[in-house]
Amino acid sequence: MAVDFRLPASVATFLDSPTPEEWLDEAVKRLPEMLLDHANCELKAASTALAFLYRYPDRSNLVQRMSRLAREELRHFEQVRAIMDDLEIPFERLTASRYAAGLRDAARREEPHKLLDSLLIGALIEARSCERFAKIAPRLPDKLRRFYGGLLASEARHFEHYVAFAKSECDVDDAEIDARLETLKSVEAALIAEPDTEFRFHSGPPP
Amino acid sequence: MAVDFRLPASVATFLDSPTPEEWLDEAVKRLPEMLLDHANCELKAASTALAFLYRYPDRSNLVQRMSRLAREELRHFEQVRAIMDDLEIPFERLTASRYAAGLRDAARREEPHKLLDSLLIGALIEARSCERFAKIAPRLPDKLRRFYGGLLASEARHFEHYVAFAKSECDVDDAEIDARLETLKSVEAALIAEPDTEFRFHSGPPP
Repeated sequence: MAVDFRLPASVATFLDSPTPEEWLDEAVKRLPEMLLDHANCELKAASTALAFLYRYPDRSNLVQRMSRLAREELRHFEQVRAIMDDLEIPFERLTASRYAAGLRDAARREEPHKLLDSLLIGALIEARSCERFAKIAPRLPDKLRRFYGGLLASEARHFEHYVAFAKSECDVDDAEIDARLETLKSVEAALIAEPDTEFRFHSGPPP
Repeated sequence: MAVDFRLPASVATFLDSPTPEEWLDEAVKRLPEMLLDHANCELKAASTALAFLYRYPDRSNLVQRMSRLAREELRHFEQVRAIMDDLEIPFERLTASRYAAGLRDAARREEPHKLLDSLLIGALIEARSCERFAKIAPRLPDKLRRFYGGLLASEARHFEHYVAFAKSECDVDDAEIDARLETLKSVEAALIAEPDTEFRFHSGPPP
């Protein structure tokens, strides 16, 4: 079966700016770290989805969807760890990149803005991951290329679910959601444009 | 397909004492609370499995197994929540029962005993859940009976995985594991024998 690495147009237009070429050049030279940090990201994505279950347990639709999302992220986590074992990449603890913390810092603390911002930030992280999978896949060895090509489709779906929930679950009008999204898109684009001394799945270009 | 409600002998012999009949009599009268607390328990079981991933990320076998376990618990959580929606049982926050906290308090804090105790406690909770599913299932309305009968088999498997990991992952000799298990079994049996004013999935008999 042919794997399609084309970045979905919905994802490309959602992000304010593309991943810098310098990050991609670095990533192909740092595959063990990329996989290690990618495994971390999948686990954190599962934990983030679960946090919605604990915070908003009375919202049945959100709860069902986030639980399924957490399961899908865990499956990806297991797949990345299995690839690491195949490639004999030993586990190492990595420090977290600025990226997720930077986005989290931009989230507002009071409801309903807290839920809205959490969902929009979720959408941005999924969209960026999807974009990086699409761009890095063609540069990877065969087995990894197929794996990253396969993840692409899931992440694109996740991004859409987060956006849909921002619109359906938050008691905030559409114009305000759009305005907030523009602000958060700028924050996200700035985070991946700024150089990083440490290479991570969501880091900026090397200095 | 016929559903087998027989309690696996391995589970029955693992527990120091059976669930009091008074708890079962109470449970059939408190189905909404039982389902609500059961959903909580599945979510907490998923979080407990994930905690192993964060605490012992270098143990590939444990990590893979616990991630799959977390996914299975989340699927059960979704199923219980869907049944609650079908039965129009609204979500309510419930206080936690003494049970899990009582077991957690018995766990030692230093490695390798912390890992051993966490795994043995996991085994006890899964075994007790399995026992309660087996005993309550025949008393439930048709749809719930089948559901609880189906969970029985998974929980019995989970219990076995926890025991197997206690033996394979901990650098502790078998005699010490057996001795520790006897102690924790007594703690567990005491926790479910003591009367509870609040009915929960793992509570003791009513006062």
